[in-house]
Amino acid sequence: MTDESSFDTVCLVGIGHICASLAVALRRNGLARRLVALEIDPEARRVALEMGLVDEATDDPARAVPGAGLVVVGVPVGAMEQVGAVIGPHLTAGTIVTDTGSVKQAVVRDLGPHIPDGVHFIPGHPIAGTEHSGPSSAVDGLFVGRWQILTPVPGTDEAALERLSEMWRRIGSDVEIMDPQHHDKVLAITSHLPHLIAYTIVGTASDLEGHLQHEVIKFSASGFRDFTRIAASDPVMWRDVFLSNREAVLEVIQRFTEDLTALQRAIRWGEGETLQQKFTETRAIRRAIIDARQA
Amino acid sequence: MTDESSFDTVCLVGIGHICASLAVALRRNGLARRLVALEIDPEARRVALEMGLVDEATDDPARAVPGAGLVVVGVPVGAMEQVGAVIGPHLTAGTIVTDTGSVKQAVVRDLGPHIPDGVHFIPGHPIAGTEHSGPSSAVDGLFVGRWQILTPVPGTDEAALERLSEMWRRIGSDVEIMDPQHHDKVLAITSHLPHLIAYTIVGTASDLEGHLQHEVIKFSASGFRDFTRIAASDPVMWRDVFLSNREAVLEVIQRFTEDLTALQRAIRWGEGETLQQKFTETRAIRRAIIDARQA
Repeated sequence: MTDESSFDTVCLVGIGHICASLAVALRRNGLARRLVALEIDPEARRVALEMGLVDEATDDPARAVPGAGLVVVGVPVGAMEQVGAVIGPHLTAGTIVTDTGSVKQAVVRDLGPHIPDGVHFIPGHPIAGTEHSGPSSAVDGLFVGRWQILTPVPGTDEAALERLSEMWRRIGSDVEIMDPQHHDKVLAITSHLPHLIAYTIVGTASDLEGHLQHEVIKFSASGFRDFTRIAASDPVMWRDVFLSNREAVLEVIQRFTEDLTALQRAIRWGEGETLQQKFTETRAIRRAIIDARQA
Repeated sequence: MTDESSFDTVCLVGIGHICASLAVALRRNGLARRLVALEIDPEARRVALEMGLVDEATDDPARAVPGAGLVVVGVPVGAMEQVGAVIGPHLTAGTIVTDTGSVKQAVVRDLGPHIPDGVHFIPGHPIAGTEHSGPSSAVDGLFVGRWQILTPVPGTDEAALERLSEMWRRIGSDVEIMDPQHHDKVLAITSHLPHLIAYTIVGTASDLEGHLQHEVIKFSASGFRDFTRIAASDPVMWRDVFLSNREAVLEVIQRFTEDLTALQRAIRWGEGETLQQKFTETRAIRRAIIDARQA
């Protein structure tokens, strides 16, 4: 029934934006015979079934977990410990457990201890997603051409790692292996800081007096609206990201604030050359992203 | 030859991204019989002629300006004073002079004194554009469904204002009348701060050690890349924006920094409720922008 990369049964724990999109990808690529959602929200279960994303949706781990060759945990990072306690007793030897969390050290710390011996625990993070939430926001092809970072812990079974990697490659992702600490440092810069800044700037605007706020919305195409998309991302997911990657995030906020203060000073003192030089350097980064086909 | 909103000859001063896109729009909508570019860069003149954007391109104001019913100044705000000195002596009574600058008080201050009596000076700002520069980046339809802000000074001729407004409406823009000071305050929030923040965050990343910078580019789809697009905008144009709207920009940086510091503190002290509440509020702003069809 299974080959190198496909699974008989895949259990998706939390059928939100990412796991719902993964369900679509697994079906489209023939990588799972049967999909089961373990989900505490009855409305999300109803939507997932109605959309045909999964074959079964239940809040009972004893029904969902045993017999699954792959379990994908797609819940906010702050819920990993609790999910681990719920699914751990039902996991059987040989199963691969992965996750989709945006922080990896915290997942290793919180989910890891609940994984029994003989179960292959391979934390992961797909660099894909939109600002939308819930199973109804599933996107066909979400992972195609995107990176899938896997952060195996020491002693991980090579065959299990290769099997999971091959699954993601068949979905259309490029797989990158990284250690959890390095992941959290890189993502603090590429993802966590940008989200925090976007939340901040949109928050600054939302604190304005009524008439000014109305105009900010009206004229948002002048730059502001680019920030509002990512500031519409799931609040609980992002609360957990910042709380669980605290040290790395605080470090990059510090760097950012120093750089902003330098530009602020250049504006105050009319230092045109400093501004122009800084603004010229940043163009090169954009070009590099376009060249890397990530634009 | 002309009706309410069309012109016999339109002179575009500086044939960059905005004026080149305007040339396309004027032609497409039959709003100008003849288009002349006044441009000091020989390469930009060559491209503009080769693309058929204009009928004539010259660096001689005595050829370009006299006889134009409309003169549109599309140069960085810091060059307005110099352009005023160059075109002023060639302007004739009845001509309408407008501009496309992102700051309006500075344009009134620097360009205004060069406009002779009898010439109608109506500063403007199209809320449209991409991160690209130069005439080759002209976009057909750039202004359709976007706002055109006009900031007439006291005593502006009503007929001239209506004629210019009607031209923009025929191009497909919605016209908003505003006083220059209010414009600069609103745009400091919706445009100038977002651009400064984007330049800062991309600059922070470009200061990283080589291997980390490589990974930032590789995994930029996780949020960072949304900032790099606007941080690729024209460096000279943006240098001038910050220098010429200094007070309003410094005021919003201050607000932003306070808000960022509050979130930083909430992260440090693990105040999850504060974070979640802030991140929930910002979702409403995104919805309002989508409802206003500016997304």
